[in-house]
Amino acid sequence: MSVSRIIEEGAEFSPKFDSNGLITAISQDAQTGQILMVAYMNQEALSLTIETGNAVFYSRSRKKLWKKGEESGHVQKVRQILIDCDQDCLLLKVDVDSGQCHTGHQSCFYRGLKRGSSQELEFIAEKVYDPSKVYK
Amino acid sequence: MSVSRIIEEGAEFSPKFDSNGLITAISQDAQTGQILMVAYMNQEALSLTIETGNAVFYSRSRKKLWKKGEESGHVQKVRQILIDCDQDCLLLKVDVDSGQCHTGHQSCFYRGLKRGSSQELEFIAEKVYDPSKVYK
Repeated sequence: MSVSRIIEEGAEFSPKFDSNGLITAISQDAQTGQILMVAYMNQEALSLTIETGNAVFYSRSRKKLWKKGEESGHVQKVRQILIDCDQDCLLLKVDVDSGQCHTGHQSCFYRGLKRGSSQELEFIAEKVYDPSKVYK
Repeated sequence: MSVSRIIEEGAEFSPKFDSNGLITAISQDAQTGQILMVAYMNQEALSLTIETGNAVFYSRSRKKLWKKGEESGHVQKVRQILIDCDQDCLLLKVDVDSGQCHTGHQSCFYRGLKRGSSQELEFIAEKVYDPSKVYK
């Protein structure tokens, strides 16, 4: 088998980290199917996620490990970790409480492009908590 | 308002392309909520997606625009384009037929990490078509 066939058809977990040592990780609500957020993991974050069962990411802005919920309390309990065909993207099926985005929304995807527009967004969700009360 | 608050709380669509001119785009089945694939768009691919209503990506391996389904016929009709809080990731809600991954699976996420393992994958989906009959 060619290398790409082994990656695509094989049963060995071999996540491909990019030149910055990161892999994209999507969190999806295991119950509702809603996409909650997209973040990044380095090898350490992935290992900690597997070991602890709670999602741990790598914050590109803060340049350090980010134990999701450490400050806010909104942890993500990982039910399943999926990987895509070329093994360069992870999908976490997670159990969560209310309010996963730091803006106060349940999901980071709370806006959509308005129909017929290429520039204007519309809000498709309300906030579910007040972030000013969570992040001091 | 600070720039980050305008990006997060505003109604202006201002997708943030990375240093390679790309933005991550997730395709999600609008009917079932299943994540189908994760790919990338440059500005041209995004504009064409908005204009035509069919998902157009930028292939990093082939270094060119990739009209999804052009070869396979498995197009993605875009129902809605969502963007996340910091506007560096797109989520496409799409209508699709059967078989979105070039491996023959409906979704690129057809394998999951085995419970209790950090190295072994298990297949969680069957192929829905024979790719050798589609890609000559």
